Amino acid sequence: MRNLLFKAAFCGEAFHGWQMQANAVTVQGELTNAWERLTGEHPNIIGCSRTDAGVHAREYYFSVKTDATVPVDRFPAALTSAKLPPAIALYECREVPQGFNARFDCEKKEYEYRIAVSDVQSPFDVGRAFWCRRQLDAERMNAAAGTFVGTHDFSAFCAADTDVQSKVRTIYSAEVTRTGPYVCFTVCGDGFLYNMVRIMAGTLLYVSDGKIAVEDVPSIIESKDRTAAGLTMPPDGLYLNRVVMKQSAFTEDEKE
Amino acid sequence: MRNLLFKAAFCGEAFHGWQMQANAVTVQGELTNAWERLTGEHPNIIGCSRTDAGVHAREYYFSVKTDATVPVDRFPAALTSAKLPPAIALYECREVPQGFNARFDCEKKEYEYRIAVSDVQSPFDVGRAFWCRRQLDAERMNAAAGTFVGTHDFSAFCAADTDVQSKVRTIYSAEVTRTGPYVCFTVCGDGFLYNMVRIMAGTLLYVSDGKIAVEDVPSIIESKDRTAAGLTMPPDGLYLNRVVMKQSAFTEDEKE
Repeated sequence: MRNLLFKAAFCGEAFHGWQMQANAVTVQGELTNAWERLTGEHPNIIGCSRTDAGVHAREYYFSVKTDATVPVDRFPAALTSAKLPPAIALYECREVPQGFNARFDCEKKEYEYRIAVSDVQSPFDVGRAFWCRRQLDAERMNAAAGTFVGTHDFSAFCAADTDVQSKVRTIYSAEVTRTGPYVCFTVCGDGFLYNMVRIMAGTLLYVSDGKIAVEDVPSIIESKDRTAAGLTMPPDGLYLNRVVMKQSAFTEDEKE
Repeated sequence: MRNLLFKAAFCGEAFHGWQMQANAVTVQGELTNAWERLTGEHPNIIGCSRTDAGVHAREYYFSVKTDATVPVDRFPAALTSAKLPPAIALYECREVPQGFNARFDCEKKEYEYRIAVSDVQSPFDVGRAFWCRRQLDAERMNAAAGTFVGTHDFSAFCAADTDVQSKVRTIYSAEVTRTGPYVCFTVCGDGFLYNMVRIMAGTLLYVSDGKIAVEDVPSIIESKDRTAAGLTMPPDGLYLNRVVMKQSAFTEDEKE
Protein backbone atom coordinates (compact mmCIF):
# COMPACT_ATOMS: atom_id res chain seq x y z
CA MET A 1 0.00 0.00 0.00
CA ARG A 2 1.32 3.42 -0.99
CA ASN A 3 0.68 6.69 0.78
CA LEU A 4 0.21 9.40 -1.83
CA LEU A 5 0.27 13.17 -1.41
CA PHE A 6 -1.57 15.34 -3.93
CA LYS A 7 -1.18 19.05 -4.56
CA ALA A 8 -4.48 20.64 -5.53
CA ALA A 9 -6.46 23.89 -5.78
CA PHE A 10 -10.16 24.59 -5.75
CA CYS A 11 -12.59 27.43 -6.25
CA GLY A 12 -14.82 27.30 -3.17
CA GLU A 13 -17.91 28.85 -4.78
CA ALA A 14 -19.16 25.49 -5.97
CA PHE A 15 -18.66 23.60 -2.69
CA HIS A 16 -20.07 23.28 0.79
CA GLY A 17 -16.53 23.23 2.10
CA TRP A 18 -13.90 20.52 2.22
CA GLN A 19 -15.47 17.91 4.44
CA MET A 20 -17.73 15.19 3.07
CA GLN A 21 -21.41 15.59 3.96
CA ALA A 22 -24.55 13.74 3.01
CA ASN A 23 -26.60 15.69 0.44
CA ALA A 24 -24.03 18.40 -0.14
CA VAL A 25 -21.35 18.83 -2.78
CA THR A 26 -17.97 19.06 -1.03
CA VAL A 27 -14.37 18.89 -2.21
CA GLN A 28 -13.60 15.75 -0.21
CA GLY A 29 -16.86 14.21 -1.44
CA GLU A 30 -16.09 14.94 -5.10
CA LEU A 31 -12.53 13.60 -4.72
CA THR A 32 -13.88 10.47 -3.01
CA ASN A 33 -16.40 9.88 -5.80
CA ALA A 34 -13.77 10.32 -8.51
CA TRP A 35 -11.39 8.03 -6.61
CA GLU A 36 -14.06 5.34 -6.42
CA ARG A 37 -14.79 5.66 -10.12
CA LEU A 38 -11.10 5.43 -11.02
CA THR A 39 -9.90 2.71 -8.64
CA GLY A 40 -12.92 0.95 -7.11
CA GLU A 41 -11.44 1.75 -3.69
CA HIS A 42 -13.31 3.69 -1.03
CA PRO A 43 -10.53 6.04 0.06
CA ASN A 44 -9.90 7.89 3.29
CA ILE A 45 -8.82 11.27 1.94
CA ILE A 46 -6.97 13.38 4.51
CA GLY A 47 -6.95 17.10 3.76
CA CYS A 48 -4.49 19.68 5.06
CA SER A 49 -7.31 21.97 6.18
CA ARG A 50 -11.03 21.65 6.78
CA THR A 51 -12.06 24.72 4.82
CA ASP A 52 -15.61 26.02 5.23
CA ALA A 53 -18.28 26.43 2.58
CA GLY A 54 -17.28 29.05 0.03
CA VAL A 55 -13.61 29.22 1.05
CA HIS A 56 -11.07 28.93 -1.78
CA ALA A 57 -7.71 27.20 -1.99
CA ARG A 58 -4.99 28.31 -4.40
CA GLU A 59 -2.83 25.56 -2.90
CA TYR A 60 -4.10 22.54 -0.99
CA TYR A 61 -2.66 19.12 -0.11
CA PHE A 62 -4.37 15.85 0.65
CA SER A 63 -2.97 12.39 1.35
CA VAL A 64 -4.51 8.99 0.60
CA LYS A 65 -3.40 5.43 1.27
CA THR A 66 -4.07 3.26 -1.71
CA ASP A 67 -3.49 -0.09 -3.40
CA ALA A 68 -4.24 1.48 -6.79
CA THR A 69 -1.37 0.91 -9.20
CA VAL A 70 -1.72 4.15 -11.20
CA PRO A 71 1.80 5.68 -11.53
CA VAL A 72 2.21 8.90 -9.50
CA ASP A 73 2.93 11.03 -12.56
CA ARG A 74 -0.33 9.88 -14.18
CA PHE A 75 -2.54 10.01 -11.07
CA PRO A 76 -3.60 13.69 -11.19
CA ALA A 77 -4.76 13.47 -14.82
CA ALA A 78 -6.39 10.06 -14.28
CA LEU A 79 -8.33 11.26 -11.23
CA THR A 80 -9.33 14.47 -13.03
CA SER A 81 -10.65 12.44 -15.95
CA ALA A 82 -12.81 10.40 -13.54
CA LYS A 83 -15.33 13.27 -13.67
CA LEU A 84 -13.72 15.52 -11.11
CA PRO A 85 -15.44 18.93 -11.41
CA PRO A 86 -13.27 21.60 -13.11
CA ALA A 87 -13.48 23.71 -9.92
CA ILE A 88 -10.97 21.22 -8.43
CA ALA A 89 -7.52 21.13 -10.03
CA LEU A 90 -4.86 18.50 -9.32
CA TYR A 91 -1.27 19.56 -9.92
CA GLU A 92 1.05 16.90 -8.57
CA CYS A 93 1.21 13.55 -6.82
CA ARG A 94 4.14 12.02 -4.96
CA GLU A 95 4.66 9.01 -2.76
CA VAL A 96 5.29 9.85 0.90
CA PRO A 97 6.20 7.73 3.97
CA GLN A 98 3.42 5.63 5.50
CA GLY A 99 3.36 7.90 8.55
CA PHE A 100 2.81 11.05 6.50
CA ASN A 101 -0.51 12.79 7.19
CA ALA A 102 -1.52 15.87 5.22
CA ARG A 103 -3.38 17.25 8.22
CA PHE A 104 -0.83 16.76 10.97
CA ASP A 105 2.36 17.24 8.96
CA CYS A 106 1.48 20.78 8.00
CA GLU A 107 4.15 23.24 9.13
CA LYS A 108 2.86 26.58 7.83
CA LYS A 109 -0.19 27.91 6.12
CA GLU A 110 -0.72 31.23 4.42
CA TYR A 111 -4.22 32.65 4.02
CA GLU A 112 -5.42 35.73 2.18
CA TYR A 113 -8.58 37.66 2.94
CA ARG A 114 -9.50 39.65 -0.15
CA ILE A 115 -11.70 42.75 0.02
CA ALA A 116 -12.93 44.55 -3.11
CA VAL A 117 -13.58 48.23 -2.45
CA SER A 118 -16.02 49.74 -4.95
CA ASP A 119 -19.38 51.52 -5.14
CA VAL A 120 -20.85 48.69 -7.18
CA GLN A 121 -19.84 45.05 -6.78
CA SER A 122 -18.01 43.74 -9.82
CA PRO A 123 -19.88 40.71 -11.22
CA PHE A 124 -16.48 39.01 -11.53
CA ASP A 125 -15.85 39.30 -7.77
CA VAL A 126 -19.07 37.64 -6.65
CA GLY A 127 -18.11 34.78 -4.34
CA ARG A 128 -14.42 35.64 -4.80
CA ALA A 129 -13.91 38.76 -2.69
CA PHE A 130 -15.74 40.49 0.12
CA TRP A 131 -17.40 43.57 -1.30
CA CYS A 132 -16.97 46.75 0.70
CA ARG A 133 -18.49 50.08 -0.38
CA ARG A 134 -16.65 52.31 2.05
CA GLN A 135 -13.02 53.35 1.66
CA LEU A 136 -10.56 51.43 3.83
CA ASP A 137 -7.47 52.66 5.62
CA ALA A 138 -5.04 49.96 4.46
CA GLU A 139 -2.10 51.56 6.28
CA ARG A 140 -3.86 51.46 9.62
CA MET A 141 -5.07 47.93 8.94
CA ASN A 142 -1.51 46.93 8.12
CA ALA A 143 -0.23 48.40 11.40
CA ALA A 144 -2.86 46.43 13.31
CA ALA A 145 -2.12 43.23 11.35
CA GLY A 146 1.51 43.52 12.47
CA THR A 147 0.42 43.10 16.10
CA PHE A 148 -0.90 39.58 15.33
CA VAL A 149 2.69 38.40 14.70
CA GLY A 150 4.14 36.21 17.43
CA THR A 151 3.00 33.34 19.61
CA HIS A 152 -0.29 34.11 21.34
CA ASP A 153 -3.36 32.47 22.76
CA PHE A 154 -5.82 33.44 20.02
CA SER A 155 -9.02 32.56 21.94
CA ALA A 156 -10.38 36.02 21.11
CA PHE A 157 -10.05 35.13 17.40
CA CYS A 158 -11.74 31.75 17.49
CA ALA A 159 -15.38 30.79 16.93
CA ALA A 160 -16.86 30.48 20.42
CA ASP A 161 -18.00 26.88 20.00
CA THR A 162 -14.57 25.49 19.08
CA ASP A 163 -13.27 22.67 21.23
CA VAL A 164 -9.50 22.35 20.76
CA GLN A 165 -6.89 21.66 23.42
CA SER A 166 -4.70 24.67 22.86
CA LYS A 167 -5.59 27.98 21.29
CA VAL A 168 -1.96 29.04 21.16
CA ARG A 169 -0.74 29.64 17.63
CA THR A 170 2.30 31.31 16.10
CA ILE A 171 1.82 33.94 13.41
CA TYR A 172 4.96 34.43 11.31
CA SER A 173 3.78 37.32 9.18
CA ALA A 174 0.64 39.40 8.71
CA GLU A 175 0.19 42.34 6.38
CA VAL A 176 -2.39 44.36 4.53
CA THR A 177 -1.67 45.53 1.01
CA ARG A 178 -3.64 47.41 -1.60
CA THR A 179 -3.64 46.48 -5.31
CA GLY A 180 -6.08 48.44 -7.46
CA PRO A 181 -9.52 48.13 -5.86
CA TYR A 182 -8.42 45.20 -3.65
CA VAL A 183 -7.32 45.40 -0.04
CA CYS A 184 -5.78 42.06 0.93
CA PHE A 185 -4.89 40.75 4.35
CA THR A 186 -2.23 38.04 4.07
CA VAL A 187 -1.32 36.01 7.14
CA CYS A 188 1.07 33.11 7.61
CA GLY A 189 1.14 30.90 10.71
CA ASP A 190 1.80 27.44 12.06
CA GLY A 191 -1.93 26.81 12.27
CA PHE A 192 -5.25 28.59 12.53
CA LEU A 193 -8.23 28.19 14.85
CA TYR A 194 -11.75 27.87 13.53
CA ASN A 195 -12.72 31.16 11.80
CA MET A 196 -9.46 32.76 12.98
CA VAL A 197 -8.54 34.50 9.71
CA ARG A 198 -12.11 35.67 9.17
CA ILE A 199 -12.27 37.17 12.70
CA MET A 200 -8.84 38.78 12.22
CA ALA A 201 -10.13 40.34 8.97
CA GLY A 202 -13.28 41.56 10.72
CA THR A 203 -11.13 43.11 13.45
CA LEU A 204 -8.99 44.88 10.85
CA LEU A 205 -12.16 46.34 9.30
CA TYR A 206 -13.09 47.70 12.74
CA VAL A 207 -9.61 49.21 12.93
CA SER A 208 -10.10 50.84 9.53
CA ASP A 209 -13.46 52.23 10.66
CA GLY A 210 -11.95 53.58 13.89
CA LYS A 211 -14.08 51.28 16.09
CA ILE A 212 -10.88 49.68 17.41
CA ALA A 213 -7.56 51.54 17.79
CA VAL A 214 -4.38 49.92 16.44
CA GLU A 215 -2.85 50.00 19.92
CA ASP A 216 -5.87 48.15 21.38
CA VAL A 217 -5.36 45.02 19.28
CA PRO A 218 -2.71 43.49 21.61
CA SER A 219 -5.07 43.85 24.58
CA ILE A 220 -7.87 42.22 22.55
CA ILE A 221 -5.54 39.26 21.97
CA GLU A 222 -4.67 39.21 25.70
CA SER A 223 -8.34 39.36 26.73
CA LYS A 224 -9.00 35.94 25.12
CA ASP A 225 -12.54 37.28 24.78
CA ARG A 226 -14.19 36.57 21.44
CA THR A 227 -16.62 39.46 21.91
CA ALA A 228 -13.72 41.95 22.09
CA ALA A 229 -12.65 41.21 18.50
CA GLY A 230 -14.44 42.11 15.23
CA LEU A 231 -17.10 40.28 13.26
CA THR A 232 -16.52 36.97 11.49
CA MET A 233 -16.25 37.93 7.84
CA PRO A 234 -18.03 35.90 5.14
CA PRO A 235 -16.10 33.11 3.40
CA ASP A 236 -16.15 34.67 -0.10
CA GLY A 237 -12.92 36.58 0.41
CA LEU A 238 -10.93 33.78 2.06
CA TYR A 239 -8.18 31.95 0.18
CA LEU A 240 -5.80 29.30 1.43
CA ASN A 241 -2.79 30.58 -0.52
CA ARG A 242 0.10 28.34 0.38
CA VAL A 243 0.77 25.27 2.51
CA VAL A 244 4.21 24.14 3.66
CA MET A 245 4.61 20.56 4.83
CA LYS A 246 7.22 19.54 7.39
CA GLN A 247 10.30 18.53 5.42
CA SER A 248 11.08 15.84 8.00
CA ALA A 249 7.77 14.13 7.23
CA PHE A 250 8.97 13.40 3.70
CA THR A 251 12.07 11.55 4.85
CA GLU A 252 11.09 9.80 8.06
CA ASP A 253 11.07 6.01 8.27
CA GLU A 254 7.79 4.24 7.95
CA LYS A 255 5.81 4.39 11.18
CA GLU A 256 3.27 1.74 10.36
CA MET B 1 -41.60 59.20 -21.43
CA ARG B 2 -37.86 59.22 -20.78
CA ASN B 3 -35.23 57.29 -22.71
CA LEU B 4 -32.63 56.00 -20.24
CA LEU B 5 -29.16 54.62 -20.92
CA PHE B 6 -27.61 52.27 -18.37
CA LYS B 7 -23.97 51.29 -18.04
CA ALA B 8 -23.61 47.69 -16.85
CA ALA B 9 -21.32 44.68 -16.64
CA PHE B 10 -22.01 40.98 -16.36
CA CYS B 11 -20.24 37.71 -15.82
CA GLY B 12 -21.47 35.48 -18.64
CA GLU B 13 -21.01 32.14 -16.84
CA ALA B 14 -24.47 32.34 -15.32
CA PHE B 15 -26.36 33.29 -18.50
CA HIS B 16 -27.51 31.87 -21.79
CA GLY B 17 -26.38 35.08 -23.43
CA TRP B 18 -27.93 38.52 -23.63
CA GLN B 19 -31.14 37.90 -25.52
CA MET B 20 -34.35 36.92 -23.77
CA GLN B 21 -35.41 33.31 -24.33
CA ALA B 22 -38.18 31.14 -22.97
CA ASN B 23 -36.90 28.69 -20.33
CA ALA B 24 -33.36 30.09 -20.16
CA VAL B 25 -31.74 32.60 -17.85
CA THR B 26 -30.46 35.51 -19.92
CA VAL B 27 -29.17 38.99 -19.09
CA GLN B 28 -31.99 40.75 -20.95
CA GLY B 29 -34.48 38.39 -19.30
CA GLU B 30 -33.19 39.08 -15.78
CA LEU B 31 -33.16 42.83 -16.42
CA THR B 32 -36.70 42.65 -17.79
CA ASN B 33 -37.92 40.72 -14.73
CA ALA B 34 -36.27 43.16 -12.32
CA TRP B 35 -37.70 46.10 -14.29
CA GLU B 36 -41.20 44.64 -14.06
CA ARG B 37 -40.82 44.09 -10.31
CA LEU B 38 -39.58 47.63 -9.77
CA THR B 39 -41.88 49.60 -12.07
CA GLY B 40 -44.76 47.36 -13.16
CA GLU B 41 -43.82 48.21 -16.76
CA HIS B 42 -42.97 45.59 -19.36
CA PRO B 43 -39.87 47.22 -20.87
CA ASN B 44 -38.26 46.89 -24.27
CA ILE B 45 -34.60 46.71 -23.25
CA ILE B 46 -32.22 47.46 -26.12
CA GLY B 47 -28.69 46.13 -25.60
CA CYS B 48 -25.53 47.37 -27.32
CA SER B 49 -24.55 43.82 -28.30
CA ARG B 50 -26.27 40.44 -28.51
CA THR B 51 -23.61 38.48 -26.68
CA ASP B 52 -23.75 34.69 -26.83
CA ALA B 53 -24.10 32.23 -23.95
CA GLY B 54 -21.06 32.35 -21.70
CA VAL B 55 -19.65 35.61 -23.08
CA HIS B 56 -18.73 38.25 -20.49
CA ALA B 57 -19.06 42.03 -20.50
CA ARG B 58 -16.80 44.29 -18.46
CA GLU B 59 -18.71 47.22 -19.97
CA TYR B 60 -22.15 47.06 -21.53
CA TYR B 61 -24.87 49.60 -22.32
CA PHE B 62 -28.59 49.19 -22.70
CA SER B 63 -31.36 51.74 -23.31
CA VAL B 64 -34.99 51.63 -22.18
CA LYS B 65 -37.94 53.95 -22.74
CA THR B 66 -39.92 54.35 -19.56
CA ASP B 67 -42.64 56.25 -17.73
CA ALA B 68 -41.13 55.20 -14.39
CA THR B 69 -40.36 58.21 -12.23
CA VAL B 70 -37.31 56.81 -10.40
CA PRO B 71 -34.55 59.50 -10.53
CA VAL B 72 -31.64 58.57 -12.79
CA ASP B 73 -29.09 58.62 -9.95
CA ARG B 74 -31.18 56.14 -7.97
CA PHE B 75 -32.19 53.86 -10.84
CA PRO B 76 -29.16 51.50 -10.86
CA ALA B 77 -29.44 50.73 -7.13
CA ALA B 78 -33.24 50.46 -7.28
CA LEU B 79 -33.15 48.03 -10.19
CA THR B 80 -30.37 46.02 -8.53
CA SER B 81 -32.44 45.74 -5.37
CA ALA B 82 -35.37 44.34 -7.42
CA LYS B 83 -33.63 40.95 -7.25
CA LEU B 84 -31.19 41.42 -10.10
CA PRO B 85 -28.64 38.58 -9.86
CA PRO B 86 -25.21 39.71 -8.56
CA ALA B 87 -23.64 38.51 -11.83
CA ILE B 88 -25.17 41.66 -13.39
CA ALA B 89 -23.84 45.00 -12.13
CA LEU B 90 -25.37 48.40 -12.92
CA TYR B 91 -23.01 51.35 -12.74
CA GLU B 92 -24.74 54.42 -14.13
CA CYS B 93 -27.94 55.68 -15.66
CA ARG B 94 -28.47 58.85 -17.68
CA GLU B 95 -31.28 60.31 -19.71
CA VAL B 96 -30.64 60.37 -23.47
CA PRO B 97 -32.56 61.80 -26.46
CA GLN B 98 -35.67 59.90 -27.58
CA GLY B 99 -33.89 58.81 -30.76
CA PHE B 100 -30.97 57.23 -28.89
CA ASN B 101 -30.65 53.48 -29.37
CA ALA B 102 -27.95 51.50 -27.51
CA ARG B 103 -27.66 49.07 -30.41
CA PHE B 104 -27.47 51.44 -33.35
CA ASP B 105 -25.67 54.35 -31.70
CA CYS B 106 -22.60 52.28 -30.90
CA GLU B 107 -19.47 53.76 -32.45
CA LYS B 108 -16.72 51.39 -31.25
CA LYS B 109 -16.44 48.18 -29.33
CA GLU B 110 -13.39 46.57 -27.82
CA TYR B 111 -13.33 42.83 -27.18
CA GLU B 112 -10.73 40.69 -25.43
CA TYR B 113 -10.19 36.99 -26.01
CA ARG B 114 -8.38 35.60 -22.98
CA ILE B 115 -6.34 32.40 -23.13
CA ALA B 116 -4.81 30.79 -20.02
CA VAL B 117 -1.69 28.77 -20.86
CA SER B 118 -0.95 26.11 -18.22
CA ASP B 119 -0.52 22.36 -17.83
CA VAL B 120 -3.49 22.17 -15.48
CA GLN B 121 -6.52 24.43 -15.74
CA SER B 122 -6.78 26.84 -12.81
CA PRO B 123 -10.12 26.33 -11.03
CA PHE B 124 -10.42 30.13 -10.95
CA ASP B 125 -10.27 30.36 -14.75
CA VAL B 126 -13.11 27.92 -15.44
CA GLY B 127 -15.64 29.73 -17.64
CA ARG B 128 -13.45 32.85 -17.62
CA ALA B 129 -10.58 32.02 -19.96
CA PHE B 130 -9.92 29.48 -22.69
CA TRP B 131 -7.52 26.90 -21.31
CA CYS B 132 -4.61 25.97 -23.57
CA ARG B 133 -1.97 23.42 -22.57
CA ARG B 134 0.52 24.12 -25.30
CA GLN B 135 2.83 27.13 -25.34
CA LEU B 136 1.75 29.97 -27.59
CA ASP B 137 3.84 32.24 -29.76
CA ALA B 138 2.35 35.56 -28.67
CA GLU B 139 4.72 37.58 -30.87
CA ARG B 140 3.67 35.76 -34.00
CA MET B 141 0.02 36.00 -32.98
CA ASN B 142 0.48 39.74 -32.44
CA ALA B 143 2.00 40.15 -35.92
CA ALA B 144 -0.98 38.31 -37.42
CA ALA B 145 -3.48 40.33 -35.36
CA GLY B 146 -1.99 43.52 -36.84
CA THR B 147 -3.13 42.42 -40.30
CA PHE B 148 -6.78 42.57 -39.19
CA VAL B 149 -6.50 46.36 -38.84
CA GLY B 150 -8.26 48.34 -41.55
CA THR B 151 -11.56 48.22 -43.40
CA HIS B 152 -12.21 44.79 -44.85
CA ASP B 153 -15.00 42.45 -45.86
CA PHE B 154 -14.72 39.98 -42.97
CA SER B 155 -16.90 37.23 -44.49
CA ALA B 156 -14.12 34.73 -43.75
CA PHE B 157 -14.47 35.61 -40.05
CA CYS B 158 -18.21 35.31 -39.76
CA ALA B 159 -20.39 32.34 -38.79
CA ALA B 160 -21.56 30.84 -42.09
CA ASP B 161 -25.26 31.16 -41.33
CA THR B 162 -25.21 34.92 -40.66
CA ASP B 163 -27.54 37.03 -42.73
CA VAL B 164 -26.42 40.66 -42.62
CA GLN B 165 -26.38 43.16 -45.45
CA SER B 166 -22.72 44.08 -45.32
CA LYS B 167 -19.82 42.16 -43.90
CA VAL B 168 -17.48 45.12 -44.18
CA ARG B 169 -16.16 46.26 -40.83
CA THR B 170 -13.34 48.55 -39.72
CA ILE B 171 -10.83 47.31 -37.17
CA TYR B 172 -9.03 50.17 -35.42
CA SER B 173 -6.57 48.14 -33.38
CA ALA B 174 -5.75 44.49 -32.75
CA GLU B 175 -2.96 43.14 -30.59
CA VAL B 176 -1.87 40.11 -28.62
CA THR B 177 -0.17 40.58 -25.26
CA ARG B 178 1.11 38.21 -22.61
CA THR B 179 0.61 38.82 -18.86
CA GLY B 180 1.72 35.97 -16.62
CA PRO B 181 0.02 32.79 -17.87
CA TYR B 182 -2.50 34.76 -19.97
CA VAL B 183 -2.26 35.46 -23.67
CA CYS B 184 -4.88 38.07 -24.58
CA PHE B 185 -6.11 39.16 -27.97
CA THR B 186 -7.62 42.65 -27.78
CA VAL B 187 -9.45 44.05 -30.78
CA CYS B 188 -11.32 47.30 -31.29
CA GLY B 189 -13.63 47.97 -34.22
CA ASP B 190 -16.72 49.80 -35.40
CA GLY B 191 -18.69 46.57 -35.21
CA PHE B 192 -18.28 42.82 -35.27
CA LEU B 193 -19.98 40.07 -37.26
CA TYR B 194 -21.43 37.01 -35.59
CA ASN B 195 -18.56 35.00 -33.97
CA MET B 196 -16.00 37.33 -35.58
CA VAL B 197 -13.75 37.75 -32.53
CA ARG B 198 -13.90 34.04 -31.72
CA ILE B 199 -12.94 33.11 -35.30
CA MET B 200 -10.14 35.71 -35.27
CA ALA B 201 -8.86 34.16 -32.02
CA GLY B 202 -9.04 30.66 -33.52
CA THR B 203 -7.10 31.90 -36.55
CA LEU B 204 -4.41 33.39 -34.29
CA LEU B 205 -4.08 30.01 -32.54
CA TYR B 206 -3.50 28.42 -35.95
CA VAL B 207 -0.84 31.07 -36.58
CA SER B 208 0.82 30.23 -33.26
CA ASP B 209 0.76 26.53 -34.16
CA GLY B 210 2.25 27.20 -37.60
CA LYS B 211 -0.86 25.95 -39.42
CA ILE B 212 -1.31 29.41 -40.93
CA ALA B 213 1.59 31.77 -41.74
CA VAL B 214 1.38 35.40 -40.62
CA GLU B 215 1.68 36.55 -44.22
CA ASP B 216 -1.26 34.36 -45.26
CA VAL B 217 -3.78 36.13 -43.02
CA PRO B 218 -4.44 39.01 -45.50
CA SER B 219 -5.26 36.49 -48.23
CA ILE B 220 -7.60 34.65 -45.85
CA ILE B 221 -9.43 37.95 -45.31
CA GLU B 222 -9.52 38.53 -49.08
CA SER B 223 -10.81 35.01 -49.75
CA LYS B 224 -14.07 35.79 -47.87
CA ASP B 225 -14.11 32.05 -47.30
CA ARG B 226 -15.05 31.00 -43.76
CA THR B 227 -13.30 27.63 -44.20
CA ALA B 228 -9.95 29.35 -44.81
CA ALA B 229 -9.90 30.86 -41.28
CA GLY B 230 -9.40 29.08 -37.94
CA LEU B 231 -11.89 27.45 -35.60
CA THR B 232 -14.58 29.33 -33.69
CA MET B 233 -13.21 29.47 -30.14
CA PRO B 234 -15.49 28.76 -27.16
CA PRO B 235 -17.21 31.70 -25.43
CA ASP B 236 -15.42 31.31 -22.04
CA GLY B 237 -12.52 33.55 -23.00
CA LEU B 238 -14.54 36.33 -24.64
CA TYR B 239 -15.05 39.68 -22.90
CA LEU B 240 -16.75 42.79 -24.21
CA ASN B 241 -14.29 45.23 -22.66
CA ARG B 242 -15.39 48.67 -23.70
CA VAL B 243 -18.17 50.30 -25.67
CA VAL B 244 -18.08 53.82 -27.07
CA MET B 245 -21.35 55.45 -28.05
CA LYS B 246 -21.60 58.10 -30.76
CA GLN B 247 -21.21 61.44 -29.05
CA SER B 248 -23.67 63.00 -31.50
CA ALA B 249 -26.40 60.63 -30.30
CA PHE B 250 -26.28 62.25 -26.86
CA THR B 251 -26.95 65.74 -28.17
CA GLU B 252 -29.26 65.29 -31.13
CA ASP B 253 -32.79 66.64 -31.07
CA GLU B 254 -35.59 64.28 -30.34
CA LYS B 255 -36.46 62.20 -33.36
CA GLU B 256 -39.76 60.85 -32.16
